Amino acid sequence: MTPTDRRVLLDMAISLDGYVAGPGGQDAGLYDWYFDPPAPSVLIVDELVAQTGAIVIGRGAYGSGDAGGWDDTPYRVPHVVITHRPPTVRPGRVEFVFATDLRQGLELATGAAGSRWVTVGGGADVARQVLAAGLVDELQLHLVPVVIGAGLRLFDGPTGAHRLDPVRVVESIGVTHLRYRLRQPG
Amino acid sequence: MTPTDRRVLLDMAISLDGYVAGPGGQDAGLYDWYFDPPAPSVLIVDELVAQTGAIVIGRGAYGSGDAGGWDDTPYRVPHVVITHRPPTVRPGRVEFVFATDLRQGLELATGAAGSRWVTVGGGADVARQVLAAGLVDELQLHLVPVVIGAGLRLFDGPTGAHRLDPVRVVESIGVTHLRYRLRQPG
Repeated sequence: MTPTDRRVLLDMAISLDGYVAGPGGQDAGLYDWYFDPPAPSVLIVDELVAQTGAIVIGRGAYGSGDAGGWDDTPYRVPHVVITHRPPTVRPGRVEFVFATDLRQGLELATGAAGSRWVTVGGGADVARQVLAAGLVDELQLHLVPVVIGAGLRLFDGPTGAHRLDPVRVVESIGVTHLRYRLRQPG
Repeated sequence: MTPTDRRVLLDMAISLDGYVAGPGGQDAGLYDWYFDPPAPSVLIVDELVAQTGAIVIGRGAYGSGDAGGWDDTPYRVPHVVITHRPPTVRPGRVEFVFATDLRQGLELATGAAGSRWVTVGGGADVARQVLAAGLVDELQLHLVPVVIGAGLRLFDGPTGAHRLDPVRVVESIGVTHLRYRLRQPG
């Protein structure tokens, strides 16, 4: 597996002050646009669903219960959960795979995604790790016009320095969708 | 002076990870677009110059020398510098006023601005204070697609929680101009 075979999209909703979750990891209203999307956001969501061949998430994003809360996701693709605490009960409608190591999880997801993208969808911890490890090819931020004042930041601790090339900006209602390509070092 | 008489715009360039200056307060390339603006950014700069009736900045933004570095600013309006260390030498081409207190400085600027806006243009410290004090009416962020990884954040410490209404998004080259109106509490 060479780096060019892997296409990883980090996709997060983020507040104006840089938080991707509230203090307890809750979504803090950052995904309101997602659950009832205005017209421009429908295009973004549909594209994301169509492009995504596998999803990587953390244990918190998976859900607090054994079965998570993922029965109604529109993504009918493998979900790789990075966790040292795999649940004992698996939900039926979405395929979940549990991996203890981020790189191993990304390899699993890449294999499952085929020619489509691996989408890293949170939470903050997995997002930071994948960014700091230089494993992100594109970054999509759904910028929500709120200042939360507390919570979990996407950019916190060592993220490395990155230059990005804007791919597009889509202004919607209550959210601005920003997509960037990360320049690879060297 | 009632609150409705004052119109305060907080205007800052910001990195994707939320920094408005590098670790030592340097601009970290965040204003490259400003000094040689691509076409869409020319409109933003021209509008800002036309709308601004007075500018409020911190001592760091004023400059390290007695005379600052402000001889070539396009703003021919009073500049209020919030500082406990007023310089002894004043530059000739731009009018500078020095105030030790933020609210006093804003009053001075509001009086000088007439029917135009008071633009708070940095540094990070003054920007945070004016935001935390609930004195900002509109926020313009010039979002630059870099991840710096260290420096001074706009949103750091107590900023309060705010909801904002998007005014517009202007996509330029190497920068996205975001303008918001802050909802007033109550």
